[in-house]
Amino acid sequence: MILHQLWVNLKNNSYPIYIGEDLLHDKAIFAEHLQNKRLMVVTNNTVADLYLSKLKQSLADFQVDSIILPDGEQYKTLATWESILDELIKCKHHRDSTLLTLGGGVIGDMGGFAAATYMRGIDFIQIPTTLLSQVDASIGGKTAVNHPGGKNFIGAFAQPKAVIIDINTLDTLPEREFNAGLAEIVKAALIKDLEFFNWLEKNVAAIMLRNKKILSEAILRACKIKCDIVAVDEKENNIRALLNLGHTFAHAIERALGYGTWLHGEAVAAGLVLAAKLSHVKGLTTAAECEQIENLLLKMNLPTKMPKDITFVQLMEGMRMDKKVKQDQLRFILLNSIGQAIISDNISEQDLHKL
Amino acid sequence: MILHQLWVNLKNNSYPIYIGEDLLHDKAIFAEHLQNKRLMVVTNNTVADLYLSKLKQSLADFQVDSIILPDGEQYKTLATWESILDELIKCKHHRDSTLLTLGGGVIGDMGGFAAATYMRGIDFIQIPTTLLSQVDASIGGKTAVNHPGGKNFIGAFAQPKAVIIDINTLDTLPEREFNAGLAEIVKAALIKDLEFFNWLEKNVAAIMLRNKKILSEAILRACKIKCDIVAVDEKENNIRALLNLGHTFAHAIERALGYGTWLHGEAVAAGLVLAAKLSHVKGLTTAAECEQIENLLLKMNLPTKMPKDITFVQLMEGMRMDKKVKQDQLRFILLNSIGQAIISDNISEQDLHKL
Repeated sequence: MILHQLWVNLKNNSYPIYIGEDLLHDKAIFAEHLQNKRLMVVTNNTVADLYLSKLKQSLADFQVDSIILPDGEQYKTLATWESILDELIKCKHHRDSTLLTLGGGVIGDMGGFAAATYMRGIDFIQIPTTLLSQVDASIGGKTAVNHPGGKNFIGAFAQPKAVIIDINTLDTLPEREFNAGLAEIVKAALIKDLEFFNWLEKNVAAIMLRNKKILSEAILRACKIKCDIVAVDEKENNIRALLNLGHTFAHAIERALGYGTWLHGEAVAAGLVLAAKLSHVKGLTTAAECEQIENLLLKMNLPTKMPKDITFVQLMEGMRMDKKVKQDQLRFILLNSIGQAIISDNISEQDLHKL
Repeated sequence: MILHQLWVNLKNNSYPIYIGEDLLHDKAIFAEHLQNKRLMVVTNNTVADLYLSKLKQSLADFQVDSIILPDGEQYKTLATWESILDELIKCKHHRDSTLLTLGGGVIGDMGGFAAATYMRGIDFIQIPTTLLSQVDASIGGKTAVNHPGGKNFIGAFAQPKAVIIDINTLDTLPEREFNAGLAEIVKAALIKDLEFFNWLEKNVAAIMLRNKKILSEAILRACKIKCDIVAVDEKENNIRALLNLGHTFAHAIERALGYGTWLHGEAVAAGLVLAAKLSHVKGLTTAAECEQIENLLLKMNLPTKMPKDITFVQLMEGMRMDKKVKQDQLRFILLNSIGQAIISDNISEQDLHKL
């Protein structure tokens, strides 16, 4: 049952996001968005056990191949991406095949990048099954794999034909991953919606109990914020960078610890608090606001501090390799206040030391 | 000295093509198209020996890194592409760096694909140094590498910021490669310009002597034909497929012989004659026209027949894996007559047997 439908408005590549219960069984949605018979489902072993046969039932009218990858951020590599391409070639898929990603952000990013580069681009549909990918990774057309030198360093912008969010898949999501997804919801609120942030503070208990009505509203509102930003700036030439709030720190943390040690959302949670505190150092957000943010994230059982074993040097090195660096100048997303993020090129190493 | 300037008209990605003598030394062109200081030149060992230091002189005001790859189609692989990405990361290039490709089609396709995927896309400029890449590969934004399963199977559409064609680089081009480039010029004429085809027949002797005036006109006219088609159909949803005239055969030949045995242009030459003859089998081009095409290519010292050691089975297998296949249906570009190519889904294995 479709509960909400959003539209990502891009010039040549507009597409719908469906949010609902039991959408994996909704044959009509798939029929509407699949123009040809041949499909390749990209998923991982964890998700395949839970949902692949369900999905295949809904695709009974199609010729479906699938590739099941190992589960984990440490497999988000060029080598795994290449194995998807090899499989597409082995099964003799052509330009008119459609690729479906069934899984979290790793599967969506890597499967999307395979679709973006196979025969210079085939259609794909995102079916995100984790909270994090439902509210963030599956929307906006960023696809990529990691490189030892940096997270998401190799990739492409490629928009899916549709995003299908079945919130029932959250029933099986481990607690740690569920919480990690909440970090991106908080991020969305912090960027441009104070009212949503207050709503989250009020509803955090219901969210933690995975109340479906409340949860689907949180997903809808987070998606809406992302869609609005992406529609204005698809390729991150300016305001899309706001979506990286907390991410300069997060990427540096993930890089220093080794990808997969902390979940991406966990690193983002710590990154959000650090970005808020850096904003405070620069005279922007108040100390009270920083505390408010930290408290909400703590209620979501998320980390709010830098891991102890990361040195300042490691952190700086990670940040210098950030994709947002312009003319060798560090670039941060700061908070004027809760609900109002800004881009700043005006951060010195000294500011970071203070932090 | 700029002799001609063309404009590739695409909605969001229009860019100029400069054709002229000694453009490698034209500091003004580079200054106009380079917005930031940091550059990465991608070239191969053959071209680097001839032109890399010349190019660097023109880029004295910039911070220039370079990567020198081994020369040859057999290196147009994911592994070589990855080595470009590794170098970009090692030299700490960011999103605002520009990549310059200096070389033939292999360098342009592979460097372009690296630019298209490094940090989800950085700017690049094509500086084609072979005739084939000047009239074909450098224009239109197709980037790719080969896969053992098929030519150009992994890639992306990515438009350069400019194409700089210095015809003086043709002075050092080996005869065999020069001739191979002519095949793509003949192809352009065959697709939609009978008058240009007749002009080529008349001027073939001067072309073979590399007369600069005649040659630059031939390059201009071939580029113009390609630009006009790409402007209407950037992503090959319909008429851009016409540019693949002769290429279904050519790719099958290259695949069967092993990439690099025949030059791409040589395979295209044989492919053009085969496409003309297949058109004749289907009641389109006349036998006289087929002969006219074959004669022109022979004067250019190009092959006009399928290599003897390729079996029909190998050929069919190569063609079935062609990127143009739709709904598992073979798709050929045929000639109604010289100067008028059409798309045909109506070719049977029997038609090919007759051939």
